[in-house]
Amino acid sequence: MAAIGEAEKARAAFWFEELRDRICAAFEAIEDARTEGPFSDLPAGRFERKATTRDGGKGGGGVMSVMRGGRVFEKVGVNISTVYGELAEPAQRSLTARKEIPGLSGDPRFWASGISLVAHMRSPRAPAVHMNTRMFWTPGAAWFGGGADLNPMIEIPEDTADFHAAMRGACDAHDAAYYPRYKAWADEYFFIRHRGVARGVGGIFYDDLATGDWEADFAFTQDVGRAFLKVFPELTRRRMGEAWTDAEREIQLVKRGFYAEFNLIYDRGTKFGLETGHNVEAVLMSLPPEAKWP
Amino acid sequence: MAAIGEAEKARAAFWFEELRDRICAAFEAIEDARTEGPFSDLPAGRFERKATTRDGGKGGGGVMSVMRGGRVFEKVGVNISTVYGELAEPAQRSLTARKEIPGLSGDPRFWASGISLVAHMRSPRAPAVHMNTRMFWTPGAAWFGGGADLNPMIEIPEDTADFHAAMRGACDAHDAAYYPRYKAWADEYFFIRHRGVARGVGGIFYDDLATGDWEADFAFTQDVGRAFLKVFPELTRRRMGEAWTDAEREIQLVKRGFYAEFNLIYDRGTKFGLETGHNVEAVLMSLPPEAKWP
Repeated sequence: MAAIGEAEKARAAFWFEELRDRICAAFEAIEDARTEGPFSDLPAGRFERKATTRDGGKGGGGVMSVMRGGRVFEKVGVNISTVYGELAEPAQRSLTARKEIPGLSGDPRFWASGISLVAHMRSPRAPAVHMNTRMFWTPGAAWFGGGADLNPMIEIPEDTADFHAAMRGACDAHDAAYYPRYKAWADEYFFIRHRGVARGVGGIFYDDLATGDWEADFAFTQDVGRAFLKVFPELTRRRMGEAWTDAEREIQLVKRGFYAEFNLIYDRGTKFGLETGHNVEAVLMSLPPEAKWP
Repeated sequence: MAAIGEAEKARAAFWFEELRDRICAAFEAIEDARTEGPFSDLPAGRFERKATTRDGGKGGGGVMSVMRGGRVFEKVGVNISTVYGELAEPAQRSLTARKEIPGLSGDPRFWASGISLVAHMRSPRAPAVHMNTRMFWTPGAAWFGGGADLNPMIEIPEDTADFHAAMRGACDAHDAAYYPRYKAWADEYFFIRHRGVARGVGGIFYDDLATGDWEADFAFTQDVGRAFLKVFPELTRRRMGEAWTDAEREIQLVKRGFYAEFNLIYDRGTKFGLETGHNVEAVLMSLPPEAKWP
């Protein structure tokens, strides 16, 4: 394998930007399409973009795109970032599932680029979702990680099945072993240990993906993004027109509290972001617009 | 110093229970006293008590007293617990400010009893508050810890000054060095590092208190509870009649989000509780009834 260098980094970073643009356009189109029912009298939601910096800009940064108070999306954030520098030891520990960071011994430089998305919906019948893919580089290694998981407030089996089918499709196109492995990893990762419950209904989670064929690993990571882009807007359009009750809204607010607990206590990306000094607004964009612990 | 044994444990545990009773009575009296203004048409809030267990009851347990949806108190929890057993290593690390748990080497038994209180108020002009005192015992040592800190949503200097004066009073009666030391410790401890802001306006925080005179340390811990019991109801009665605006409520909900972040990311008592398998309801009682991350 040739060394992974600037060309690959640029292609990955460019893809995350392109995916962000396509997702934002798809979500804004959903806002436009919502013309009746609760909140349809609001202006169609639009993303606002804001540059974010790490370590005052010396360590890279990104762009945070947030749509707040829309007709369908109560709060959705799509962050892209490209960060680099030298990694302090605590951040190294939260950066990978492995105990040791590949290729980092003796040279603490790193580079990372990725996209991260969390959507909290108005309707308790429309599932919340999380998607994140990223490329990591150290002087001796390069790998991909990411995944997507569905977080329904009220589980609807059809939606769960379709979401998993989409993730399976992205996986199966590359390696038949991926879906079972990455589904199991999501089930393990997105688990709220102190409550003994899953955060949602799962999806896929992968990390440390470096098969030796960077092109193939990059293509897989792109396919995960494309699968998300196809299935999530479908689920949203399917559910956004359904009426909901106050009791369902209460369930949603309580489940969002669980979601906040997971992200603040367990989520590795959140820890990594807070520990490496990225914009706190961007790192905590994932937190729900409103939550209850009654 | 004579070894600290069952008599001391029983006296400490009994005090925490007595303090709980007096605090609950004082808070219910405040509910009764609120007869005009927002939420005064609700029934006066009352505490509900529920037994909690650690490790299915094999490791002790406690009683959680929660008042929800009152006229003045939106949610207030007062937990007492007496737990014991053997400490796994991760829990040991979150149990004390010291790197090493005193008296634990070679014999992992521990015993702990304490009271923990968090009050979230209806009015954004009435400060939220946290108070906790506890006694810890290991085969070779016994110590006290605790403190109280005020968390106004809208800071009112008079309240801050009175709260600190009360805590200073409790400290000064025992050792002139306590207040400056424990105030500084609270400022350091109740700090939301990732946001670079204090959680509230401080108070006192102490841990590992074992001067060699158990009686004196216990008396100090009791005085911290008494000072809290005097000052906090005063502040609440002072503010509960004041009108507030929707904008002030929004500030409150956002500050409560910060409070939740602190407790889930940094709070040692929360970590200890979750890691040692105490009732998750009791451990997370501190979380706000409603919060926003807009």
